[in-house]
Amino acid sequence: MSKRALTSRDIAKLAGVSQTTVSRVLQGSDLVLPKTRQEVLDVIARLGYLPSPAARSMRTRRTNTVALVVANLALNPLYPVMLQLLSSALRRKGLYASVWEAENFDEETMHALSETPVDGVIVATAMDSALPFLMRIAERKPLILVNRTVVSDLFDQISSDNVAGGALVARYFDEHSRRRVGLITTASQPCPSPIRDREAGYTAELLRRGIRMDEDAIVRVAHFSYQTGFEAAQTLLERNNPDSIFCVNDIIAIGALDGARALDAAIPGDLWVVGYDDIPMCAWRSIGLTTVRVPIEAMVDAAVGRLCERLESNSIPARNILLPNEIVFRNSSGQ
Amino acid sequence: MSKRALTSRDIAKLAGVSQTTVSRVLQGSDLVLPKTRQEVLDVIARLGYLPSPAARSMRTRRTNTVALVVANLALNPLYPVMLQLLSSALRRKGLYASVWEAENFDEETMHALSETPVDGVIVATAMDSALPFLMRIAERKPLILVNRTVVSDLFDQISSDNVAGGALVARYFDEHSRRRVGLITTASQPCPSPIRDREAGYTAELLRRGIRMDEDAIVRVAHFSYQTGFEAAQTLLERNNPDSIFCVNDIIAIGALDGARALDAAIPGDLWVVGYDDIPMCAWRSIGLTTVRVPIEAMVDAAVGRLCERLESNSIPARNILLPNEIVFRNSSGQ
Repeated sequence: MSKRALTSRDIAKLAGVSQTTVSRVLQGSDLVLPKTRQEVLDVIARLGYLPSPAARSMRTRRTNTVALVVANLALNPLYPVMLQLLSSALRRKGLYASVWEAENFDEETMHALSETPVDGVIVATAMDSALPFLMRIAERKPLILVNRTVVSDLFDQISSDNVAGGALVARYFDEHSRRRVGLITTASQPCPSPIRDREAGYTAELLRRGIRMDEDAIVRVAHFSYQTGFEAAQTLLERNNPDSIFCVNDIIAIGALDGARALDAAIPGDLWVVGYDDIPMCAWRSIGLTTVRVPIEAMVDAAVGRLCERLESNSIPARNILLPNEIVFRNSSGQ
Repeated sequence: MSKRALTSRDIAKLAGVSQTTVSRVLQGSDLVLPKTRQEVLDVIARLGYLPSPAARSMRTRRTNTVALVVANLALNPLYPVMLQLLSSALRRKGLYASVWEAENFDEETMHALSETPVDGVIVATAMDSALPFLMRIAERKPLILVNRTVVSDLFDQISSDNVAGGALVARYFDEHSRRRVGLITTASQPCPSPIRDREAGYTAELLRRGIRMDEDAIVRVAHFSYQTGFEAAQTLLERNNPDSIFCVNDIIAIGALDGARALDAAIPGDLWVVGYDDIPMCAWRSIGLTTVRVPIEAMVDAAVGRLCERLESNSIPARNILLPNEIVFRNSSGQ
């Protein structure tokens, strides 16, 4: 089926004039009678042939806008930082961001998103349950997954090695003889891939090192917040007396640190707390949280670079890009 | 000039068939020959008559999308919270947010924004210097200013009473006999209206109460960050030995608190620190910052409500809505 847009030939036919006349009107030539000019302009206005944004977008099928699908921005300071970096990186490529919040990929939002004219989509909140939706988008336009991944080789997926990051923490604890270990993670199902991987990397490495973590040394919070982290740490301290706690993200780790401090735990003497992400607050003097840094700048650059390649040609094969994480040491651990 | 969109009459004319035939094709009727059907569908596809998003947006001139113009989301945790609230409030009205970051209203971004098909615009970063741009938008579509204001009665402006908020802090200090006062604010010009108003309200109320604040009890930071607040407090403590410091936003206040703690200042015994905004981190136990709470939920509700009124009829007169602020007391002040 032909997909060409409205042409001057159509305008000519509808206005009942020659194509030459239409061209002359568009060029502002004097060789057209005022009445004829008005008739052509009327048809043009009626059909949106003039470069109004919507008409132009329909013709060129380019909007220079990219949809960014992000999680609730108020929940984790990592998300606005990532959004900010994504939107700046897009701007440097002459693209604009249209931001969509979709933690749960509800049908209505996804439908609206698929109806919105954008050149491509970057999804920072992908879940396996969203696969059908992601596949529907990927059929029609460039789609890049960043931060979270799904089980599929149909799209580009750019993430960091959360399994290795979790293992780094286990090794750090073990090498400093911290072996009464604990874990604060999420109870939410489905679990976002980075969280699942951090937890898996940590527990597997503990096991490999012969460190035993009882099931009751794990607290699963209903949702990630300062408050749930605060309470989880107090539960763990009163029940298990751990000497080290790994929290799968910084927001619960900061809460855990404060929960432990409220019980007068000596940190880092008696207790180490380690988080994950390296949100800006970790470096605040009152916080001082050791954490695993996610390479968001590099992830964002890779995602936007890949998107731009796909905007040139969307037929290139999908790639998985996995970037390394590193521990940043602060006062919540160490001697 | 007529502005109707493409009609079935145009389709009929271009395909060389009757309008009835076009209707039948659109309804999927069997009464059309396959060849004729294909010809009509070709014209429809070519002209974008089928409800593709861009074509529909051109016809109905509604996109159900609202542009939100916000400042750098990574700079102040208040912005993602406000953005989150705005986007949720819009969703409840069946509208979607297209987020634009424009702290400085650069020409290029503003041009792109004015070209984007949206039903209305909510600006959270207005400055007087952006007036020409704001007027250009307001001529064509509903425009609401929230949080920051400009000197104009041409648009709806929804903000909180930052002058009164600044005065509350001065009164609080005075009533508790804290009269060696200091101020940490911004050096940036032009100054965002809330900052200017907080500073003005604070200094005017101090003056009214006969409290003298020397010029060197004021530190103006180049930009708002934890680090500039940290350093400003140390400068003030070493130079002026204040017993109370008002910081015009929470990010510098949290930095100031940590800067003072790093110098072993006894807080709140020797020094009170008060911020402004009430970002979530103020309530963290390690922080505990007394601050002036901005009623962002109420501001967002008023802004979105007003936008919806304007989407019905954009000819209603402009209004200024000014909401009250209140102090939230925590450990950085009080006996």
